[in-house]
Amino acid sequence: MPEKVKIYEVGPRDGLQILKSIMPTEAKILWIKALADAGVKEIEVGSFVPAKLVPQMADTATVIQRVCEITDISITALVPNLRGAQDAMQYGAHSIIVPISVSELHSLANTRKGTFAQIQELQRIVDWNKTQENPMEIEAGCSTAFGCSMEGVVSEARVVEVATALASTGIDRLALADTVGYANPRMIHSVVKAVRKSIGNILTKLHLHDTMGLGLANALAGLNEGIRSFDSASAGLGGCPFAPGASGNIVTEDLVFMLESMGFETGINLEKLLAARLILQESLPQEVMRGSIGIAGIPKTYRATRPY
Amino acid sequence: MPEKVKIYEVGPRDGLQILKSIMPTEAKILWIKALADAGVKEIEVGSFVPAKLVPQMADTATVIQRVCEITDISITALVPNLRGAQDAMQYGAHSIIVPISVSELHSLANTRKGTFAQIQELQRIVDWNKTQENPMEIEAGCSTAFGCSMEGVVSEARVVEVATALASTGIDRLALADTVGYANPRMIHSVVKAVRKSIGNILTKLHLHDTMGLGLANALAGLNEGIRSFDSASAGLGGCPFAPGASGNIVTEDLVFMLESMGFETGINLEKLLAARLILQESLPQEVMRGSIGIAGIPKTYRATRPY
Repeated sequence: MPEKVKIYEVGPRDGLQILKSIMPTEAKILWIKALADAGVKEIEVGSFVPAKLVPQMADTATVIQRVCEITDISITALVPNLRGAQDAMQYGAHSIIVPISVSELHSLANTRKGTFAQIQELQRIVDWNKTQENPMEIEAGCSTAFGCSMEGVVSEARVVEVATALASTGIDRLALADTVGYANPRMIHSVVKAVRKSIGNILTKLHLHDTMGLGLANALAGLNEGIRSFDSASAGLGGCPFAPGASGNIVTEDLVFMLESMGFETGINLEKLLAARLILQESLPQEVMRGSIGIAGIPKTYRATRPY
Repeated sequence: MPEKVKIYEVGPRDGLQILKSIMPTEAKILWIKALADAGVKEIEVGSFVPAKLVPQMADTATVIQRVCEITDISITALVPNLRGAQDAMQYGAHSIIVPISVSELHSLANTRKGTFAQIQELQRIVDWNKTQENPMEIEAGCSTAFGCSMEGVVSEARVVEVATALASTGIDRLALADTVGYANPRMIHSVVKAVRKSIGNILTKLHLHDTMGLGLANALAGLNEGIRSFDSASAGLGGCPFAPGASGNIVTEDLVFMLESMGFETGINLEKLLAARLILQESLPQEVMRGSIGIAGIPKTYRATRPY
């Protein structure tokens, strides 16, 4: 039996939020539907943040409601605070991701709160969620866990301290995020081991960026460390505000290709995933579509019989 | 003491040979000099093949002679036959790489000889070389070892059979080449293990392409398997004639960044390597320069103090 790996598509949120173009709501829904048809079952469809700050996400409530009607995927929204969590539940999200930056400066820039003040906000969300009839799953997204463009090196001790505080709030799961792409495989091994030692399998997922080109190598290091869930974005959408032209999230198509070629089961059909990428490309003609499989095509040896 | 990893720059040969532009001889020499200044000590500067077929390499003799005068790098030339080997020695190459395709069809297309006929040619080269006053080092470059765009899957048994025959000729070292970029990390582990079991440490090096985006992940798998030598090309030069627009060799700058960030010692200065990339870019303005570090820049955490 092949081992399963879960892929969370974050393109509609982490990918689109940084683009100059604003993807029309209908195009978003078509795209998300195509992703679902390809077998992508976990999708971060948007965020509940002020539309003034992130106009690309202004239609998140509508997107969630419409997507709920047409597919059976698990819908995630990013929320920075209790108010956003309440909106997410009201409109039908199944789970929420709350971003917590390990780096204090990044936390202040991203949420206007320091790291531990933001952990208190997370505690309020967890406590409120418990009292609801149909509580959502709550994930803490541990940003800048492998380095920060503002603070530079982020110490492993600090990551463990923050992850431990996050785990104690009662979240369902935690993801370590390489927000700016500074991680390397040895660091992945070391930080994952250290965090697991402290909080165990509440750490389920890695959120990796390909800014420095090491995205899939870092994913491989995560796999070797026992991680079986990854965030990624179709066509490698996203980017880094501090590195114009740099790559964004790791590319869903390439990640699926790597995993399936290695004998893991993602449940995702690569041909259909490329069809979803085309929908994305057509609706965002000004934007750069990244990813090797999208350019080179699926090689003829894909899923050919190998001794694994 | 950090462990050393050797990087062989193949851009001047594997990179340039597929481009439409022909790089002027003086520009090649400037570029190679800049690479040497950055600490790249092993450079494949060209090949002795018919200029009618590969006009980009017509100046290889001149390039070798000129480079010998100005730097102390180890100069390698690719040669498909005894005649080429004799040219390489005459003009001053320190080592030669003889390409041998594991796939019969690729061998016929590349050298007009089948795999085992080409191994006989290699035997002639090895025998002749031994009789010379200053014999060159001879490397067998085992092409299509992880799949072939013509034959599709290449069996591990066939790779072992060919590698074993190659080792018995008396070569100094063998490289396994993912000529068309079909490898994945699990395959790297499996094939390297199988070949090592048969020929031991004569297998020293991997030659990886990034066609499917897995280049650095495959390099990581090689590292984990004990490989400490890699081919790569500045700016990811090269490509695949069967996949227009697809990536070429793994990118030297990104590979150096990955290795040094992980605590390996390459002897290469990344800032100077980016300066060499600029020389390349200026002399080939029509060509796509790939690589993440070249676009995103060196992150501020590079070589910062980590517990390794």
